[in-house]
Amino acid sequence: MPGPDRLSGLLAPVCTPFREDLSPDPERLASHCRWLLSQNAGLAVFGTNSEANSLSIGEKIELLDHLVDTGIDTNRLMPGTGHCALTDTVKLTTHAVNLGCAGTLMLPPFYYKDVSDDGLYASFAEVIERVGNENLRIYLYHIPPIAHVSISPQLVERLVRDYPATVVGIKDSSGDWSNTEALLKLELDDFRVFAGSEAFLLRNMRGGGAGCISATANINPAAIHDLYVSWKSEDADAKQERLNNVRSIAQKYPMISALKTTIANFRGDPQWEITRPPLVPLSGDQKSLLISELVHAGFDMPGLID
Amino acid sequence: MPGPDRLSGLLAPVCTPFREDLSPDPERLASHCRWLLSQNAGLAVFGTNSEANSLSIGEKIELLDHLVDTGIDTNRLMPGTGHCALTDTVKLTTHAVNLGCAGTLMLPPFYYKDVSDDGLYASFAEVIERVGNENLRIYLYHIPPIAHVSISPQLVERLVRDYPATVVGIKDSSGDWSNTEALLKLELDDFRVFAGSEAFLLRNMRGGGAGCISATANINPAAIHDLYVSWKSEDADAKQERLNNVRSIAQKYPMISALKTTIANFRGDPQWEITRPPLVPLSGDQKSLLISELVHAGFDMPGLID
Repeated sequence: MPGPDRLSGLLAPVCTPFREDLSPDPERLASHCRWLLSQNAGLAVFGTNSEANSLSIGEKIELLDHLVDTGIDTNRLMPGTGHCALTDTVKLTTHAVNLGCAGTLMLPPFYYKDVSDDGLYASFAEVIERVGNENLRIYLYHIPPIAHVSISPQLVERLVRDYPATVVGIKDSSGDWSNTEALLKLELDDFRVFAGSEAFLLRNMRGGGAGCISATANINPAAIHDLYVSWKSEDADAKQERLNNVRSIAQKYPMISALKTTIANFRGDPQWEITRPPLVPLSGDQKSLLISELVHAGFDMPGLID
Repeated sequence: MPGPDRLSGLLAPVCTPFREDLSPDPERLASHCRWLLSQNAGLAVFGTNSEANSLSIGEKIELLDHLVDTGIDTNRLMPGTGHCALTDTVKLTTHAVNLGCAGTLMLPPFYYKDVSDDGLYASFAEVIERVGNENLRIYLYHIPPIAHVSISPQLVERLVRDYPATVVGIKDSSGDWSNTEALLKLELDDFRVFAGSEAFLLRNMRGGGAGCISATANINPAAIHDLYVSWKSEDADAKQERLNNVRSIAQKYPMISALKTTIANFRGDPQWEITRPPLVPLSGDQKSLLISELVHAGFDMPGLID
């Protein structure tokens, strides 16, 4: 049994819809996932932009079970499974692997700061040993602006050396291209480097990267995927510029609330605006401004289904 | 029913002992708690220095149940119950209140950064409403160097105004005396301001504060408590200096590992050195140096029991 193939291309850290009572809404989530798949985006559910860290493990397990029960292709699923507590990370990762998910996106334990590479290595190694499943594929999740705990290139190298069939990629959300470059230059065998934003997609592909996992894939997946498949074409730079334009509009607002407002608007489904505290929805003024700017820029969400 | 009295004095964010297999050790925890109580320190179990954020909710519930079952006075318990996920915070807080704990120490949701006071207010308010118990007493936990999410004096004021019988205090671990001063100057009715380190104990008491909740209370409780009760005495400044001296020795090392090494040494129980990843124990050299410095400074842990 070779286990799951390594992933590449575009994945969306799928926004999580909530009901009025702030409970997660599995049907709306599945519907959004089906649309993303139809636009060639894989599903990094339970990412930062999924408000995953505002969900309990029990809530995540219920949502993931629903997605799989409802027929979402596990080969396209890369759920986030990294928590502060070792035992939580082991629990959700085990569940994801048992469901057949192609990979898991793994935050480092992110509460304690100034921890050593030895400590982080011990944490990831302990998770791998405890899950103890040859089908486990870990994509490390480096997002220092939010986690305030870093996964250094040296730590990546050490983990890949000791677990080459398990630690197979990384999402670099540092926003620091020199860090992505350092990861690409490690030249690890078939190691998949994903940019954490489509703003770096073209550079990442030219440097030998695997694609990107980006918040805005929730609203602009087709165009991002198009650049992913056509990055060698002559108009690739122009395409990158158009992606940057849409992103720059969304980025003027708190990103998760902006994405949810956009989805709500183009679906005609205001429930999508709901965020779970500590996040708050955009104000009325912010909403109007965001949508008018997007429409003015010719933005659309084509092919919305169910 | 008036509900639990407000707390004051010294509390220890109780270190959590682990077994070789990294599971928490309830018997050793209870034993340490009994010693702390015998030294007049209350029990802020599941604080930062408890490695609480390396424990799952299930593990915390088991430990708390064990402490109460074994006869630890719930009037002296202030468990940390704040998690990233609203539903997790509600779950552990409800459990703690149902057990009769005198208070809970509540981190803000700490994954998402740059969140608004409105979002944090909504988060705390939602927890209070969902727990829905008049015996709930919340001590807010402000620790920006680690949480990277702040609880501003303005937010404190707003929460106390709307929930005066529930939001009854704060632990200020900012390390910034001007912030503690700002909290004291709010002059909220019977609001308990705890310094997050005994280094600020005397200043806090002179400013009208309630005491301190400090890591080093795990090893030096009697001396810290002595300054708490005698802060008006002539030799208070000299006592503060002696406390600072012990603290400055421990602070040269990663604090949690230093505390555990000290407990292990004075108890003659090496198992106490175990930390859960991502933390690592002190090296052999660090251990020797720490203990010899402490002994040289005349430090002791008197009255260790069972």
